[in-house]
Amino acid sequence: MRWRYIFHIIGMLIFFLGVFMVCPLFVGLIYGDESVLPLLDSMNLTIICGLLLCLFFRSPKTEYISPREGMAIVALGWTAVGVFGAFPFYFSGGEFGTFVNAFFESVSGFTTTGSSVLTNIEAVPKGLLFWRSFIQWLGGMGIIVLSLAILPFLGVGGMQLYKAEVPSPVPDKLKPRIRDTAMILWKVYAGITLAEIILLMIGGMDIYDALNHAFTTMPTGGFSTKNSSIAHYDSIYFDSIITVFMVLAGINFSLHYQFLKGESLAFWRDSECRFFLGVVILLTAVVSFDIYGATYQTIGEAFRFAVFQIVSIITTTGFATADYETWPAMSQIIILLCMFLGASAGSTGGGMKCLRAMLAFKYCYKELFSLIHPHAVTHIKIGGKTVPEGVMRSILGFLALYMILYAFCSVLLAGMGVDFVTSFGAIAATIGNIGPGFGLVGPAENFALIPESGKWLLIWCMLLGRLEIYTVIILLVPEFWRK
Amino acid sequence: MRWRYIFHIIGMLIFFLGVFMVCPLFVGLIYGDESVLPLLDSMNLTIICGLLLCLFFRSPKTEYISPREGMAIVALGWTAVGVFGAFPFYFSGGEFGTFVNAFFESVSGFTTTGSSVLTNIEAVPKGLLFWRSFIQWLGGMGIIVLSLAILPFLGVGGMQLYKAEVPSPVPDKLKPRIRDTAMILWKVYAGITLAEIILLMIGGMDIYDALNHAFTTMPTGGFSTKNSSIAHYDSIYFDSIITVFMVLAGINFSLHYQFLKGESLAFWRDSECRFFLGVVILLTAVVSFDIYGATYQTIGEAFRFAVFQIVSIITTTGFATADYETWPAMSQIIILLCMFLGASAGSTGGGMKCLRAMLAFKYCYKELFSLIHPHAVTHIKIGGKTVPEGVMRSILGFLALYMILYAFCSVLLAGMGVDFVTSFGAIAATIGNIGPGFGLVGPAENFALIPESGKWLLIWCMLLGRLEIYTVIILLVPEFWRK
Repeated sequence: MRWRYIFHIIGMLIFFLGVFMVCPLFVGLIYGDESVLPLLDSMNLTIICGLLLCLFFRSPKTEYISPREGMAIVALGWTAVGVFGAFPFYFSGGEFGTFVNAFFESVSGFTTTGSSVLTNIEAVPKGLLFWRSFIQWLGGMGIIVLSLAILPFLGVGGMQLYKAEVPSPVPDKLKPRIRDTAMILWKVYAGITLAEIILLMIGGMDIYDALNHAFTTMPTGGFSTKNSSIAHYDSIYFDSIITVFMVLAGINFSLHYQFLKGESLAFWRDSECRFFLGVVILLTAVVSFDIYGATYQTIGEAFRFAVFQIVSIITTTGFATADYETWPAMSQIIILLCMFLGASAGSTGGGMKCLRAMLAFKYCYKELFSLIHPHAVTHIKIGGKTVPEGVMRSILGFLALYMILYAFCSVLLAGMGVDFVTSFGAIAATIGNIGPGFGLVGPAENFALIPESGKWLLIWCMLLGRLEIYTVIILLVPEFWRK
Repeated sequence: MRWRYIFHIIGMLIFFLGVFMVCPLFVGLIYGDESVLPLLDSMNLTIICGLLLCLFFRSPKTEYISPREGMAIVALGWTAVGVFGAFPFYFSGGEFGTFVNAFFESVSGFTTTGSSVLTNIEAVPKGLLFWRSFIQWLGGMGIIVLSLAILPFLGVGGMQLYKAEVPSPVPDKLKPRIRDTAMILWKVYAGITLAEIILLMIGGMDIYDALNHAFTTMPTGGFSTKNSSIAHYDSIYFDSIITVFMVLAGINFSLHYQFLKGESLAFWRDSECRFFLGVVILLTAVVSFDIYGATYQTIGEAFRFAVFQIVSIITTTGFATADYETWPAMSQIIILLCMFLGASAGSTGGGMKCLRAMLAFKYCYKELFSLIHPHAVTHIKIGGKTVPEGVMRSILGFLALYMILYAFCSVLLAGMGVDFVTSFGAIAATIGNIGPGFGLVGPAENFALIPESGKWLLIWCMLLGRLEIYTVIILLVPEFWRK
């Protein structure tokens, strides 16, 4: 492990984060609010720390990163930007109060979770709210690169399947590959975000809110500038636009790239994308039917809220137009299961991912088949190609780890004095990077009432889920630290 | 598939079930209660149906059973005894009412689940209550043979690991092997049951209650003759005796056999047994600490109720000395997780089984290890022996299927109008063959309030869990029915 090199890279990350703080500072200056000073202080602190780290840990030019170094950079890098991203909130005091609150909000941003400790969002200065949305957008950029350029090479959680999705002139060296893939995908990401901003403004949303909501839709983040989230607007137009863009954000970004390059059937040809859209349609139908009559008086209304909420949760965005905790039990359970399922791999969404769920189904079927035909040799295929044994193993390991950690963290959180339903709901919402959960942290509530120790645990869960479990949990394996 | 042969065997099962009805009939005659007539009618009906089936489907003598035939016999056989075992309850009317209630109680017995639809147990005639306990005891005998003699040969859910646990002179033919293994293990089972009866009577329990409670402890069933279960006695002596015998029932029966044959270290040498006992000790400590102060005033009292309840749930027995729903959230979540974990494979307990959980942990660790050392070849070992790839695959498939079916059935049950917590609790309690769940079906309640469609679903879940998922779910795979 070349620690000098790792700290050098993290220093660079921090430096650029500081530079990015100019954006919310600019917003703060326009509106002339109290965010200017905390943002300026944070910017100075962040840039200086980043530079010092870069200069202190000089590193030779290298094109090669080992898998272990890659994992250390990912886990430590995300934590570091979480810490420095928290300073504007912490320095402003006000609604945030303690450092853990500011850190929670910042990590919730960078991991595109969207869980918030804010009770009165609208009381927060506009510059800070913009920073809160902007770090989700930056987090989304990080995730696209992580899942389509870094994890496939680290062999983590079955992401190896995406090794050759986006072409690169230097396919097997991690650093140049990251650079090329990132540039291609970021253009797609920025382009779609721009389209959403324009469409929201056409519907009459002012530029500030349009920017904020587009910046939190595309990374499937879900922070809103309004206390009642998207329900604030009560507009079918905004609901529809945001639903469409949440769906886009929940699809593998390399498919968007292929589509924009002219492959008009790219989405249809991808079996994960078909599965994802199929599940959305099926669950929307079931939930619409379930809440029609029980909560809403017309089928149109039931459909409107069902489709928004299903898409919002399954893509792990977490925007709310309705309080699903008031829905019948079946719909609530479906929403909870959506938190586990998540969107496509290679999208900005969290959760277990549709790809892994699909492969787990196929695996179970194969096991049943081999009981009936013990001597038949069968392979699991996806999109016509056989899934290598090693990939299947890492996917099953991922799913097992996910459930084990989910159970373990729920026990821990309950041990900190949180009630039964809230414990399960809060862990599901953070490990799946959703945002709202159940119980005290439902869509009409927030995470302010969770005790401080619980917030630290949830911060860890957000990182755990976002970095695909393995990259974080591996730091706890003693073997990782041996020479 | 030789259907004639399958129906012939099922006919024999039903015939013997009818013969066994003489035991509760005898009890009914002693106490001279209203159970005599319904039991006599059921006995006649069952013996006649069994004989007719046997005679109608004559079958050639055979020593060979194919895996598919084995699975059909297991799944249909358990369902058939469930149906015929329900007649005494159904014919008596009274507390049971509809057929689905009687069928629910009967399947809950044969699968050693212990969930009940009875609100006032003590109002039921003694002969019927004895039948209710006795079918759990018979169910337990079935499970020992199923898990240690049949499933290993069918290659189901990793039970292949137990292929050579109990010696048999004809190791590879299913029928003689079942006969030999069964005889050995039944002697052990009957012997331990007898010891419990004697110890309960020494403590002052009358012979009727001692028989009933021993008959439902050893199969980890959990039916009681008292409305408030074991809490009725409020006796540290009974609590301790029953705790010890629940633990014994939760240990692989082939270890009891080895121990009785003189291998004094048999329990200690078995890694699954160490894991099981370790988990019991750890969770008892955590729960004692959690409920001390919150629910109980002395640490001794906290320990007494914690150890009983943890052992009762982890062994999937379901006896109650306390209402765990009044405990703090952490203890409740631990209880819920125990419902999933279950006892040892090869015991009469249900759930996922410690063996599978252990192997899942090892599997996750191995995956993490191979991320750190991508080229190292590692094997998963248990008790010093390498676990074959095929076994590991069927165990992971089992765990995935278990969770998928758990989620799916919870949605279905909620769709039938059952609330959020009760849906999750009732499915966990039935698929894990525990007995009590959470919410409306907690340890202080029963399953009477579940709607009729829900009871049918839960009956299916009990069979599903008891027959190790695969044997039941495989009947739904079209491939199974093809020539």
